[in-house]
Amino acid sequence: MSDFPSSSDLDPIGSLIKLLNRLPGVGERSATRLAFFLLSQDRNYAQALAHRLAELHDRVHKCIECNNYGSESRCSICNDERRDKTILCVVANVQDLIAVERTASYRGIYHVLHKLLSPLDGVHPDDLHVEQLKRRIETLQIKEIIVATPLSVEGEATALFLAQTLRGSGCHVSRIASGLPHGGELEFTDQITLNHAFEGRKAL
Amino acid sequence: MSDFPSSSDLDPIGSLIKLLNRLPGVGERSATRLAFFLLSQDRNYAQALAHRLAELHDRVHKCIECNNYGSESRCSICNDERRDKTILCVVANVQDLIAVERTASYRGIYHVLHKLLSPLDGVHPDDLHVEQLKRRIETLQIKEIIVATPLSVEGEATALFLAQTLRGSGCHVSRIASGLPHGGELEFTDQITLNHAFEGRKAL
Repeated sequence: MSDFPSSSDLDPIGSLIKLLNRLPGVGERSATRLAFFLLSQDRNYAQALAHRLAELHDRVHKCIECNNYGSESRCSICNDERRDKTILCVVANVQDLIAVERTASYRGIYHVLHKLLSPLDGVHPDDLHVEQLKRRIETLQIKEIIVATPLSVEGEATALFLAQTLRGSGCHVSRIASGLPHGGELEFTDQITLNHAFEGRKAL
Repeated sequence: MSDFPSSSDLDPIGSLIKLLNRLPGVGERSATRLAFFLLSQDRNYAQALAHRLAELHDRVHKCIECNNYGSESRCSICNDERRDKTILCVVANVQDLIAVERTASYRGIYHVLHKLLSPLDGVHPDDLHVEQLKRRIETLQIKEIIVATPLSVEGEATALFLAQTLRGSGCHVSRIASGLPHGGELEFTDQITLNHAFEGRKAL
């Protein structure tokens, strides 16, 4: 714990605020508010939170197959015999996997990249570890890969890279559709989305 | 830890999200985001946070004099010989004390209520423990009490209650001014504040 000061050299509230301040979306004011809230609450609450945080990395593992989080070496989805193991959906992170699961309509398996191509942030093609994905495609004899990375610049770049890399792997590579969201109004839709919606039009 | 499920009966991420969700301003989506952020970071960060939370209530004490937080039984302000111990400022909580300290112009001592009168929330006059304050006024021979509770309904009610209760204690009880903030425009000031500003006008 070299970059974290030891108990003795900083005051307990100040050092808690500093750590909370590193959470995304938590500025110094919010961190202060959270620290004083924790102090004002029953000690059991802070203790329970401490306990969960301390065990987090020990109890949560990345699935050796798909990189999803789980409490065992293989995640519950890879272990599920009822899933269709010939369709694989590539997602950027576990939150996105959860979002797809929530639709309850996808019955295939996943591959979690945990990052997206972003040369400016130092994420290059090699960092995506596509060999692992290629091995799974071969072993499981995957028929279709659905690339469900976000429609952001990084997500699109990653999708393009995957399409190129997996060309010749014998499986069909598709990309999730881009268009207007459910209930969307054309008037308030940006030009790129509207272009995508027109390009991706389907026969009625 | 009766109301917190033990390690085994809930998944580690889900139970962390549940606990984070109890923090003020942290909805379920933010809690989920924070949990996955913590997982994506170096384990030392979660460990350091866990450590700080676990020790928080053991290392932070309420000052036996003024209820301020500190690492010893008497806080650093009560222990400071250079503070004027004949002027006492009543604040709602420690965050407000810190705000007053930041001005660096107040050199008296404090009394932290840790709550404000709010019958609807079950906070009644007895809960303010005014006897402790009265005892300090007598012992320290306080000359002036500045009531710096917020200008909210609860803050005003508490100020009024303190003024009534401390009447006859022999010390001068004052209330912080209400008016326009620094740089404030009359046009955008609410009527109550503007009324206060007029009522509280000072000779030029």
